[in-house]
Amino acid sequence: MKAVLAYSGGLDTSVCIKILQEKYGCEVITVTVDVGISRSELEEAQEKAEKLGVLKHFTIDAKEEFARAYIFKAIKANAQYEGYPLSTALARPLTALKVVEVAKKEHADALAHGATGKGNDQFRFEAVFKTDAPEMKIIAPVRELNLTREESIAYAKEKGIPIHVSSEKCFSIDENLWGRSIEGGILEDPAVAPPEEIFEWTKIEAREPEIVEIDFADGVPVAINGSEKGPVELVQEMNALAGRHGVGRIDIIEDRILGIKARENYECPAAVSLLTAHKRLEHLVLTRNELKSKEEAESTWSELVYRGQWTDPLRETLDAFIDKTQKRVEGKVKLKLDNKYCAVVSMESKQSLYDRKAASFDEKSIL
Amino acid sequence: MKAVLAYSGGLDTSVCIKILQEKYGCEVITVTVDVGISRSELEEAQEKAEKLGVLKHFTIDAKEEFARAYIFKAIKANAQYEGYPLSTALARPLTALKVVEVAKKEHADALAHGATGKGNDQFRFEAVFKTDAPEMKIIAPVRELNLTREESIAYAKEKGIPIHVSSEKCFSIDENLWGRSIEGGILEDPAVAPPEEIFEWTKIEAREPEIVEIDFADGVPVAINGSEKGPVELVQEMNALAGRHGVGRIDIIEDRILGIKARENYECPAAVSLLTAHKRLEHLVLTRNELKSKEEAESTWSELVYRGQWTDPLRETLDAFIDKTQKRVEGKVKLKLDNKYCAVVSMESKQSLYDRKAASFDEKSIL
Amino acid sequence: MKAVLAYSGGLDTSVCIKILQEKYGCEVITVTVDVGISRSELEEAQEKAEKLGVLKHFTIDAKEEFARAYIFKAIKANAQYEGYPLSTALARPLTALKVVEVAKKEHADALAHGATGKGNDQFRFEAVFKTDAPEMKIIAPVRELNLTREESIAYAKEKGIPIHVSSEKCFSIDENLWGRSIEGGILEDPAVAPPEEIFEWTKIEAREPEIVEIDFADGVPVAINGSEKGPVELVQEMNALAGRHGVGRIDIIEDRILGIKARENYECPAAVSLLTAHKRLEHLVLTRNELKSKEEAESTWSELVYRGQWTDPLRETLDAFIDKTQKRVEGKVKLKLDNKYCAVVSMESKQSLYDRKAASFDEKSIL
Amino acid sequence: MKAVLAYSGGLDTSVCIKILQEKYGCEVITVTVDVGISRSELEEAQEKAEKLGVLKHFTIDAKEEFARAYIFKAIKANAQYEGYPLSTALARPLTALKVVEVAKKEHADALAHGATGKGNDQFRFEAVFKTDAPEMKIIAPVRELNLTREESIAYAKEKGIPIHVSSEKCFSIDENLWGRSIEGGILEDPAVAPPEEIFEWTKIEAREPEIVEIDFADGVPVAINGSEKGPVELVQEMNALAGRHGVGRIDIIEDRILGIKARENYECPAAVSLLTAHKRLEHLVLTRNELKSKEEAESTWSELVYRGQWTDPLRETLDAFIDKTQKRVEGKVKLKLDNKYCAVVSMESKQSLYDRKAASFDEKSIL
Repeated sequence: MKAVLAYSGGLDTSVCIKILQEKYGCEVITVTVDVGISRSELEEAQEKAEKLGVLKHFTIDAKEEFARAYIFKAIKANAQYEGYPLSTALARPLTALKVVEVAKKEHADALAHGATGKGNDQFRFEAVFKTDAPEMKIIAPVRELNLTREESIAYAKEKGIPIHVSSEKCFSIDENLWGRSIEGGILEDPAVAPPEEIFEWTKIEAREPEIVEIDFADGVPVAINGSEKGPVELVQEMNALAGRHGVGRIDIIEDRILGIKARENYECPAAVSLLTAHKRLEHLVLTRNELKSKEEAESTWSELVYRGQWTDPLRETLDAFIDKTQKRVEGKVKLKLDNKYCAVVSMESKQSLYDRKAASFDEKSIL
Repeated sequence: MKAVLAYSGGLDTSVCIKILQEKYGCEVITVTVDVGISRSELEEAQEKAEKLGVLKHFTIDAKEEFARAYIFKAIKANAQYEGYPLSTALARPLTALKVVEVAKKEHADALAHGATGKGNDQFRFEAVFKTDAPEMKIIAPVRELNLTREESIAYAKEKGIPIHVSSEKCFSIDENLWGRSIEGGILEDPAVAPPEEIFEWTKIEAREPEIVEIDFADGVPVAINGSEKGPVELVQEMNALAGRHGVGRIDIIEDRILGIKARENYECPAAVSLLTAHKRLEHLVLTRNELKSKEEAESTWSELVYRGQWTDPLRETLDAFIDKTQKRVEGKVKLKLDNKYCAVVSMESKQSLYDRKAASFDEKSIL
Repeated sequence: MKAVLAYSGGLDTSVCIKILQEKYGCEVITVTVDVGISRSELEEAQEKAEKLGVLKHFTIDAKEEFARAYIFKAIKANAQYEGYPLSTALARPLTALKVVEVAKKEHADALAHGATGKGNDQFRFEAVFKTDAPEMKIIAPVRELNLTREESIAYAKEKGIPIHVSSEKCFSIDENLWGRSIEGGILEDPAVAPPEEIFEWTKIEAREPEIVEIDFADGVPVAINGSEKGPVELVQEMNALAGRHGVGRIDIIEDRILGIKARENYECPAAVSLLTAHKRLEHLVLTRNELKSKEEAESTWSELVYRGQWTDPLRETLDAFIDKTQKRVEGKVKLKLDNKYCAVVSMESKQSLYDRKAASFDEKSIL
Repeated sequence: MKAVLAYSGGLDTSVCIKILQEKYGCEVITVTVDVGISRSELEEAQEKAEKLGVLKHFTIDAKEEFARAYIFKAIKANAQYEGYPLSTALARPLTALKVVEVAKKEHADALAHGATGKGNDQFRFEAVFKTDAPEMKIIAPVRELNLTREESIAYAKEKGIPIHVSSEKCFSIDENLWGRSIEGGILEDPAVAPPEEIFEWTKIEAREPEIVEIDFADGVPVAINGSEKGPVELVQEMNALAGRHGVGRIDIIEDRILGIKARENYECPAAVSLLTAHKRLEHLVLTRNELKSKEEAESTWSELVYRGQWTDPLRETLDAFIDKTQKRVEGKVKLKLDNKYCAVVSMESKQSLYDRKAASFDEKSIL
């Protein structure tokens, strides 16, 4: 049997290679999908995969597609679930899609992922697997063997899989263009404040407040401070810009798909700042009826994506709704970034519905 | 005819006294309802009213009732409309109620207010007037004469009404326990950033970040840093505490009841910080189903109150829903206040639904 | 001044002609928009208008446009407000649009309608007038003079306007392709059952139950019993078919735009039967997620149209959402019509999501 | 191990007794909860259980509790899921509760039910089991052995379990006070019209149309044609009354909890007629705001109960909302029953918000 595995290079998916080979008797093809990981991680993943005896390894650069067809949809939808801008949730369906594409080209029999039975990712991978390749078998070694982290580490050591995890630190990290998540260890206790050391994207480096101007067209950002940028570059730059003011930290209690509450920490500088700007601009150009109805559509969109139902036809239907409203979402928004604080200070739009004369103070009074 | 007027001591309601007397031939009784105004303002209102020849003037201290029966309901409802915590919107029905009470005791024929035909307050006053005193006439002199601000000033000068308005400054201010609103002048242009000078409650005076612990019971705050406080004192202290960190500035485009878009600036230090804490605590103690359904109830409650429909039976029905959920909203929340930034850093509750074992990292993995 | 009046030929709009001429000093152009009225009524309207000295009279056949661009949108949206399929509500914006078109061609100064200040139609006409011809004056003589029905009749007699109203009968009727409304007189009392005599479209003439097969494509009906039909003909035939089984009577308490409750009776044979078939078919071809989300969109669409906000951009946005779902709404539905009863008995669709094997009884048991 | 089984006397639960004894080595206690089953069925269940060697058998009359604390809540909530009034869905949590009560009294170790892995009932039983007896083991023999109907029959024959199923007929039936469901066989094909023979509660026996007057107080029915009745008797009488006019047939495509579409047929004469009356009465006595908001609460309540989440705290929270509105839902409603047709013809209420003068035709006109 030939299995294609979504491979991150981390502990769990490395363990999966060995299990697939030894317990499931598979030839393994690994796919690392780059949705915004560092080059060194990509190279490390490739080396590790090869060392673990995979049949083939593929590295796929999906950053442009991720930014354009996933992140930008999320911006238009003001996507967030309980305060979380869906960074990992958005990337999984794309990763799964790329895995399926490789599997079809390589005439594989099975699709594999390293998610556990407790988290959200199993649903996100498998919904795409089932929709796009219903004929293929799905294997989830970590879930099926119900491995704890301890057991995974033991197994890795036994099989000579190189691992990074230091036992003291033990945070679980996931990164892509749209954000960075940090889980585990002492963070699991809601009574413990997150220590400064967990943050990498939102260290305060700027000394002075900064005003950033973002241009929107068709509901998506197209320029920063007057300089036009493609989606990937724009998101990367906003991560850097907002990040050095400490903007983008999110610390929430999240209700996972299976109903379990989890304490989650995220760093999403681009997401937090761009969504702040986008939402405010919408209030200038959309009618009250549109804003209210879109709010419901946003909430449905976000929950759908969080739950891994990217391929439910409702998602595209909601996109049709949202896209229709975004035609008029254009203009310039000035954001103030200052010591974790991010707020709109002014904006302009040709599509503005604001009518100074109708609203004006000079013809209005308050008791 | 005897008319009872909701009187703030400001330009518009002072003008109303004269119009009621001269154009409507009324004996005027003025009522100033204290929902969190300074003593000097209250005294000034009384002096002014007497000088303008009213039959009687009443000053009514409604702070306790406002905090307990309005603000605390708003906290339980996480009340906000397009980002605005409803400070003025919440106070109007109570003011109207007090005006009606005086009118009934004084056997008046009419109820009067100083709101214009463009804003929201006319609806908020009149809904209560109509429900609680359907037999009385309603007079809205500023709206009926369609006076612009210019005309009001001219009329005031003509009638010898003392006014404060300096022509340069010309912001329109409204204050109560739950917030301060600043409108008009250059603020009307969304392309202009609000100047620092408009802020009075949120000047940054604290040098260092501060952690504040708030105790909740039955969904409402009962103590700050371990020290129990009554509703009025608690809200006042949070205004001071959060305010000196610059927390609570709100700058939005607001869709008024009549469909007009307006640019509004608010300072609501207590509202912003207490709601941040309250919402986060709810995520620890309520089920996902409850959180989702309550979000809809909150949105309906807020819109209802914004639109002045405090007396619609739906409001009490929503309170029944909300109160039922709040029985379990108890615990301690630690807030970090730092240079306009306000975030929960940790919390504890006996009602917590968080189950570390179910969620734990040590039995879960992320690809 | 030249005014263009939406003219039905009835009492109120006839009175409007005279008032416009005499009180407002207008030259009057009348427009009767045919959205499904009998030829005799159209001719009568023309004669009456000419007799009352109008400058010009136009009869515009808008049936095809009404069916295709209004009724078919309503079917896709399963449109209903408190049980009312929006027959009159749907027609008003189209009538208003045609009035504006004539007004522009004729270089008129004003747009006029005969609606009162209590009902819904004033909002429906004026929203279109304001959006499409903001430069023109709007005149609503019946509302402005606050005429009661008695006064209108007296005025009509005085001015020699021919009227039909018999004092015994005195029901107010409105008809178009999508339904017939009957109001007034004894019907106003919810404690009185509607007498058989008020019904004209739903008299039971069929002796035997009947099965009718309707074909849907792209969410709209395209054939009856295998015979393809254009929109107008199809709706007319369903009115006849369902009507002779007594199907389509609706008797409700309706909350009007201004918040007044009214008792309303409707006959909508085509609407009731086609919507029954359409909704059931959707349950076969749309996912649960789609059905649930569409239900909210339908409710928003219906309320928007009921309230006359046809021109709010949200309406087109909701249509984009709805149209996206309707691509898969195709198939055949069999309806049973029998003595006021109308129900789906069977259906077939290539787009069916029903999977007999997944659902089957032979692998399932109930306690 | 001692297991308490929810026992209907039917094939699947009879098979469960044997499997529990032989495969799981359990002593079995059976509980038949009477939520509106015939006496003969109850007796048959008891005999069968004893014959199959159970340790003890309990028959529990829960009709009064079912009507008062479940059906009446459903009436107040106008409960329906995709057109289904939740008859079985409402009864399962109560049955589960009674099973738990017996298990606690009998010091059992396990709770068992006969539901499969495809249907909804597994979730409904287990939610209550987990909430009310988290310490007990749950056994679902039919699901765990993944038995098809064929296999169950074969197993029953092998073990000498008496069965009724004739191979021709093979519909699966479930009955209680609030309705009767019929599934399986040819009914599974949506293209097949349900044959007359499947109906037992809605055979048309009445020759003439009939007017029935129902009195409501606090949102629930209290009298039929002026004669007061307790909940059980009232529901039974409405089943008989409406049933003999053929009222209450429901034929839908239902989206089950697991996302599978199923074709379902129900007979719910009392539910259909009482809900028709109750909803219409609400339109007379509740404000538009209340009606709209309650509609959302109803939909949430119904979905929650359908999904078996009776014990989620949200259900009681929604009941608090609903109960608040029902205080004013009182009055008399006249229903016309005629050949499967059921409609309100008139109503009266002291709480009516209808104001004839405000709505009246004599001061209103339609174009």
